[in-house]
Amino acid sequence: MNMVEIIVAPNAGFCFGVKRAVKLAEESADIAKEGRRVFTLGPIIHNPQEVGRLKSLGVEPLEGERPQEGDAIIIRSHGIPPNKERELKEKGFKVIDATCPYVKAVHEAVCKLSEEGYFIVIVGEKNHPEVIGTLGYLEECKGRGIVVETLDDLKEAFRHERVGVVSQTTQSEKFFKEVVGELALWVKELKVINTICNATSVRQEDVYQIAPQVDVMIVIGGKNSGNTRRLYSIAKSLNENSYHIETADEIVPSWFEGVKRVGITAGASTPSWIIEDVKSKIEEICRGSSCFSS
Amino acid sequence: MNMVEIIVAPNAGFCFGVKRAVKLAEESADIAKEGRRVFTLGPIIHNPQEVGRLKSLGVEPLEGERPQEGDAIIIRSHGIPPNKERELKEKGFKVIDATCPYVKAVHEAVCKLSEEGYFIVIVGEKNHPEVIGTLGYLEECKGRGIVVETLDDLKEAFRHERVGVVSQTTQSEKFFKEVVGELALWVKELKVINTICNATSVRQEDVYQIAPQVDVMIVIGGKNSGNTRRLYSIAKSLNENSYHIETADEIVPSWFEGVKRVGITAGASTPSWIIEDVKSKIEEICRGSSCFSS
Repeated sequence: MNMVEIIVAPNAGFCFGVKRAVKLAEESADIAKEGRRVFTLGPIIHNPQEVGRLKSLGVEPLEGERPQEGDAIIIRSHGIPPNKERELKEKGFKVIDATCPYVKAVHEAVCKLSEEGYFIVIVGEKNHPEVIGTLGYLEECKGRGIVVETLDDLKEAFRHERVGVVSQTTQSEKFFKEVVGELALWVKELKVINTICNATSVRQEDVYQIAPQVDVMIVIGGKNSGNTRRLYSIAKSLNENSYHIETADEIVPSWFEGVKRVGITAGASTPSWIIEDVKSKIEEICRGSSCFSS
Repeated sequence: MNMVEIIVAPNAGFCFGVKRAVKLAEESADIAKEGRRVFTLGPIIHNPQEVGRLKSLGVEPLEGERPQEGDAIIIRSHGIPPNKERELKEKGFKVIDATCPYVKAVHEAVCKLSEEGYFIVIVGEKNHPEVIGTLGYLEECKGRGIVVETLDDLKEAFRHERVGVVSQTTQSEKFFKEVVGELALWVKELKVINTICNATSVRQEDVYQIAPQVDVMIVIGGKNSGNTRRLYSIAKSLNENSYHIETADEIVPSWFEGVKRVGITAGASTPSWIIEDVKSKIEEICRGSSCFSS
């Protein structure tokens, strides 16, 4: 008997940067095993189960502890200002940098644009850790600029002739477009480096690809999660046999009767181990007799 | 008795580039006086009276004549492709370049952006003489690019990672903003040099400045001219004593009774001599007794 073929969407669940940060945290658990302590600078993701799981491996958020020789600290995917990183090193931490490469690209972009003489506009939220990190890099490379959270914030930029624009990686495309359009009318020269990470849109593109070519499409994620519900609605429009579940427990074996190919995707707040759980559960069901009963 | 003070809006009537072209044509009339012929490459402006006036000075649109030694030809404010200019010189014409400096700035911008490796988007009308001239310069400097007249035209630009944008000088700000916004979402790096000439908006700004500080505001221009009607509507909203006329003949002396300051502006299709006519007529009225009767 052949196994069912399961296609997990390449961009299911956490974005690339968060996946990478969690992987680095897991790998750091080896350090914890050697008796040294491993901290993360703030919760590594906004998912208590996942933070709990990492804690059980010996990796936990820093809460005012003083480092001891060899203690490690993980910088989250958001990144931090460079002076803050130096401070951690000076305190004696071994720094593990899990800053998302897409966020590093923003740091590089603001410095490149500054060196080219542009006044910088960072389209983003003023108090977001990622933006605070980027502002730190802008200061480090002696650049000048502002964070634009509302169109009103733009006024200051209008006074400059040459403006360079980047975006917080998770910024809304709609607002970014508005800001760039306004600036184009006001300043003489505008250089835009689009640093929006397209995790949400590629996750949706995956569903457009996969749902039509499978017998059953499973969408994992909170029932109250907007981005998951949108994934499910796309899946359902393309494949009648689409199901929205939160965990593997909700899987009904009869969904897979006679099924040869199953697609899986997951919303942004779903850790990969939940996706793996679902995959295993389906494999288990299809190791029995039901999958190829027809 | 004091003279009435007349404030003519600095941006009234023709834009800077058209004014300059007409002035160059007038100056070229001296060449015509020396018995040589002076042509313009197409009508120098879209106003038959003005073209007729220049014709009476010996400057007329080229219509298939073969140049003779010393004949002069005037390039209009729109500009022409560089190979076309060379061709005129090879034919033996003395070339007088009345290309608007703002249009020359577009030629320079497309070449600068091309040298920096950008694929060029010219926001404008495909068949507009100005755009045809700019495309000629783009070709001359070995650049690659397209003219974008509708959002649909943008598709080709999306295939390029680095895109440089300029605009036809008379392009609508609204469409330019849309194009730049769309591009910012699709391409990795976008450089925008805003080459829209702000003649229309500065003409309106003049009215906002002048209308509230004068006793009477005169707006000159075709009754069917959209831009003139908008000027009049702004004027009227700021100053009840605002009047929209086409020529000096429509002036009513009683408008100026007891008046100390008069503002004048004019729509884009109004030659300066019509503005001068109006100004003289008002001065004439106020040389009499009516202006300071109160």
